[in-house]
Amino acid sequence: MSDSAYEKLLAKGREIQLVGDAQALLGWDQEVLLPKKGIAYRGEQMAWFSGWAHEQFVSAEVGDWIDEAEAASEDELEKANLREWRHNYNRATCLPKELVEEFAQAKVLSQASWAEARKKSDFEKFAPSLTRLIELCREQAERWGYKDVLYDGLIDRFERGTSTQRISETLGDLRDKLIPVVEEAVATSGDEVPWEGSEFPIEQQRAFNEEVARSIGFDFDAGRVDTAVHPFCSGMAPFDTRLTTRYNVSDFRSSLFGVLHEVGHGLYEQGLNPDHRGQPIGNAVSLGLHESQSRLWENHVGRSRAFWEYWLPRAVEYFPTLGGVSVEQMYASVNQANLSYIRVESDEVTYDLHILLRFEIEKAIFAGELKTVDIPSAWNERFEQYFGLPVNSDSNGCLQDIHWSMGIFGYFPTYSLGNINAAHLTNAALSQSPEIKDQMDRADYSGLLSWMREKIHARGSVLLPDELIEESTGSAANATALVDHLKSRYLRA
Amino acid sequence: MSDSAYEKLLAKGREIQLVGDAQALLGWDQEVLLPKKGIAYRGEQMAWFSGWAHEQFVSAEVGDWIDEAEAASEDELEKANLREWRHNYNRATCLPKELVEEFAQAKVLSQASWAEARKKSDFEKFAPSLTRLIELCREQAERWGYKDVLYDGLIDRFERGTSTQRISETLGDLRDKLIPVVEEAVATSGDEVPWEGSEFPIEQQRAFNEEVARSIGFDFDAGRVDTAVHPFCSGMAPFDTRLTTRYNVSDFRSSLFGVLHEVGHGLYEQGLNPDHRGQPIGNAVSLGLHESQSRLWENHVGRSRAFWEYWLPRAVEYFPTLGGVSVEQMYASVNQANLSYIRVESDEVTYDLHILLRFEIEKAIFAGELKTVDIPSAWNERFEQYFGLPVNSDSNGCLQDIHWSMGIFGYFPTYSLGNINAAHLTNAALSQSPEIKDQMDRADYSGLLSWMREKIHARGSVLLPDELIEESTGSAANATALVDHLKSRYLRA
Repeated sequence: MSDSAYEKLLAKGREIQLVGDAQALLGWDQEVLLPKKGIAYRGEQMAWFSGWAHEQFVSAEVGDWIDEAEAASEDELEKANLREWRHNYNRATCLPKELVEEFAQAKVLSQASWAEARKKSDFEKFAPSLTRLIELCREQAERWGYKDVLYDGLIDRFERGTSTQRISETLGDLRDKLIPVVEEAVATSGDEVPWEGSEFPIEQQRAFNEEVARSIGFDFDAGRVDTAVHPFCSGMAPFDTRLTTRYNVSDFRSSLFGVLHEVGHGLYEQGLNPDHRGQPIGNAVSLGLHESQSRLWENHVGRSRAFWEYWLPRAVEYFPTLGGVSVEQMYASVNQANLSYIRVESDEVTYDLHILLRFEIEKAIFAGELKTVDIPSAWNERFEQYFGLPVNSDSNGCLQDIHWSMGIFGYFPTYSLGNINAAHLTNAALSQSPEIKDQMDRADYSGLLSWMREKIHARGSVLLPDELIEESTGSAANATALVDHLKSRYLRA
Repeated sequence: MSDSAYEKLLAKGREIQLVGDAQALLGWDQEVLLPKKGIAYRGEQMAWFSGWAHEQFVSAEVGDWIDEAEAASEDELEKANLREWRHNYNRATCLPKELVEEFAQAKVLSQASWAEARKKSDFEKFAPSLTRLIELCREQAERWGYKDVLYDGLIDRFERGTSTQRISETLGDLRDKLIPVVEEAVATSGDEVPWEGSEFPIEQQRAFNEEVARSIGFDFDAGRVDTAVHPFCSGMAPFDTRLTTRYNVSDFRSSLFGVLHEVGHGLYEQGLNPDHRGQPIGNAVSLGLHESQSRLWENHVGRSRAFWEYWLPRAVEYFPTLGGVSVEQMYASVNQANLSYIRVESDEVTYDLHILLRFEIEKAIFAGELKTVDIPSAWNERFEQYFGLPVNSDSNGCLQDIHWSMGIFGYFPTYSLGNINAAHLTNAALSQSPEIKDQMDRADYSGLLSWMREKIHARGSVLLPDELIEESTGSAANATALVDHLKSRYLRA
């Protein structure tokens, strides 16, 4: 008996994934290990893999299988797979293979020119490849077509089922509620630490971070933590989830919270159903949900007082220099609010202002209102408006993030959606399962992880993001839970 | 104008290489980084890549292109490419894709079972997968066909243009000349070191090794040195050559000579013509020549008195504990001869006995004279005969090497060919360019490297191994130069 159309789709999806996961290793390696002179060839390799996967997927027979399987499908999981295959097929068939290949290659080479430009704080070194990446993204979005604005199609790659309009409303609401909190938090927060001048040996940081990561459930037999300039998480294969972090010998907080953040992403990847690998439902549902998991463990867990009541004595064993620090001092030290230049080093309360700025810049770029050459001045003007600080160099301004050099536009707003979702999901978990709070007070994170495993991770992409939040929490997410959380943490009056 | 058949072969070869180089990263990663639970999926990936490359290459159009290009080819490089494409095509078309895939997957999984078996010194844990790999190798060799013995076809994968018979003669001659040298060297050599009880911090070893590797010409912008249980070198892409080593905190020699050895391989890879990547002539000519480069830098350079006259004072800066050691003591310490169990830790003079043993075992396996279950006793019996030591555990015996678990049979004898070639090439370089010796006395290795670059590396696979040795040295290699070298180094009377 021959395979059904649906079975053929499963087999094809599995093959494309298997090969795509090799490409994911190439991408990870490029960030973590690749020798400098190897970059050009890596670009050719990335182009090949992207082109091959595209060609496999857009073939007429895949289209026929989707048609045929849609007519026969009854099951919830099958319907979800077909919904996503249809959506992805419709978008992929809009693009010629050459465009896909050129985009893949341009991304690799742009990263090298961006890294160079950032080091020298010289925007002009990056401008030509940035312009090309913007053109390539614009061409893709034009080909996909759009109802409202072209930027919608770029967001769709990261957050299914939303729009520029909806995100503008959500983030506008967040901004209005956030600004008074930011003002008060910044006015009352210090920036001194009680371990001034101490050293935190990297090996000790690594060991402490690993103990924390294990305790919240990261499986080191199915993952790794490596060192890289840019902290990230790659769920590059089933049972192979890799995080990176970076170390600051004079401050353990940088790597610890970096690891907690990436472990949150990693737990999501490790919680996906490996039997669904290669099917759309086997993927994380969206970046806004992915980021909810990282921010949950980093902020709601890792910056809580209960966390430090347990972990401070352990930290002292790794870092004897922390011996005289009280829980209250530590709690204050990990919850300082400051207006600062660098997004990834910013605190929980000012973080979303950094996102708003990027979202507005990206919207302007793809509305055709902002040319590459004008990005630095637009950035600096807006930054001063939000943060009250003049930007002193592009390295501290529009060159700070790797995303644009990777051709990633439409991704930044999902960070704020992640913050919103994290607060909303935390509230839901604690209210549905009140024992989770007591467990967490004992540094037992299994209840919280189980809730996320069942409600979020294991559901993969069966539902769309909004539906998944509704299913798991009983309501839609909005800025309220996040702002309440920030108030209770930062406004100590 | 449409591409010629030869141009089509170039393009196809380039594509297969580009993708094969991604598979090489997967293979490297499996040895160095892959989390334990990721192994099964990695096996599926390796099977896909091997199957894909096979299918691309054995297509009828490739056969037609080779026919057509052979008729038109005049140029030396084109003829060399076509000689190898023809040879590889004839062999590849003997194999069904399923066999190629199964072999690739079995190799990945066997390595995991071997690692487990070796750790527990439990041969039975490895026996089933070893049996399967032997069957798969036998099936391939049967399909390739052979004139004399089946093992010939396995050797051909690593050393073109030779045979079991020829290697038996070469190694038999070496054995006869070597045994009296071994006896005398072992009888007169000590095994004490003048730094007994010292510690050599890994970070210092890493830094010292890197300085030495740079000084002999390894390009760290086009390569890396990482840590792995099994030292190896992978020239995984143009401008991306990766070595591994392992560290022993109580003895710096282990990582230093390991790095010198792998750097020798690495210099060969870095010296291949990157413009020929994807063409047969862009590859190293054989394992016996590859090993000549590693043994040259490890032994002829790194264990020489002149080397230590320059490097001992530098070593003392990294390892102050070596402060009281004389050049003569150091020279003796890096040239001790001892009968011992482990090949990779053995000295230059007893090394080839380890190879002889493996060569004889492999010949017996593929002559059908030795069943898997009988390998340990055959190994132990022969070992006691050669080394006068009873093997106390299979971890120190037939489980010590990774090769068989990688499905690599016919590879071991190339180690001895490498030793023979290294001595022969060193003599030729020093006699053709006498200034090289003076340069090396000043720790200037550029003359020796240039000679190898020009005569060996840059020639890739334009010639067959024997032809290349004849072209570069003016004569065929035999055991004489190696034995003379060992006598002058080990027999101090």
